[in-house]
Amino acid sequence: MKKIMNPIKQNGSMEIRKMYYVLVYDIASAKRLPKALKICRKFLYWIQNSVFEGELTKSQYLDIKMQLLKVINKKEDSVIFFAIRNPQVVDKVILGKEKNEISNFI
Amino acid sequence: MKKIMNPIKQNGSMEIRKMYYVLVYDIASAKRLPKALKICRKFLYWIQNSVFEGELTKSQYLDIKMQLLKVINKKEDSVIFFAIRNPQVVDKVILGKEKNEISNFI
Repeated sequence: MKKIMNPIKQNGSMEIRKMYYVLVYDIASAKRLPKALKICRKFLYWIQNSVFEGELTKSQYLDIKMQLLKVINKKEDSVIFFAIRNPQVVDKVILGKEKNEISNFI
Repeated sequence: MKKIMNPIKQNGSMEIRKMYYVLVYDIASAKRLPKALKICRKFLYWIQNSVFEGELTKSQYLDIKMQLLKVINKKEDSVIFFAIRNPQVVDKVILGKEKNEISNFI
């Protein structure tokens, strides 16, 4: 795995490029579910039942992916990452209840 | 609601602009769930438990939104649309089982 050696600078010219991710999972076992939830919460914001979003560096993305691959059953579970290079082209529209109001998406 | 009068032409210069949508829902009632599922399946591709994707014209988007608003309980349920103006900036990565292999995303 490629290691990013520079620290992440917020709003700096040396800023490591981040991408926006929307992650959805479908975990078939009640035993594996809390493990997957815990990993996703470490890296991303929970926005709805089994849906997360947030910014990740390449290194963080590889990290969450590796951690999830250790936990899920590849024959039964499914995790989808939507990786958005330019979050300005995405609008989020919510109907009904906003489950989690803490969100940094756009 | 604005009506689009021209027919949709595939790959034509007069093509009505479509956007890509990822829709996720969290429906709290087992009674409302099949109704929401049916509406989403009419317009989009089901890709995972409670996750759909596909292209919609503005008119179709307003239509699915209106139909879902009639069915959901706004205090208990949640529907999120991620509207992506330029689907070329989105990559989809799947870990584990691909629940639905029929997909026109990207």
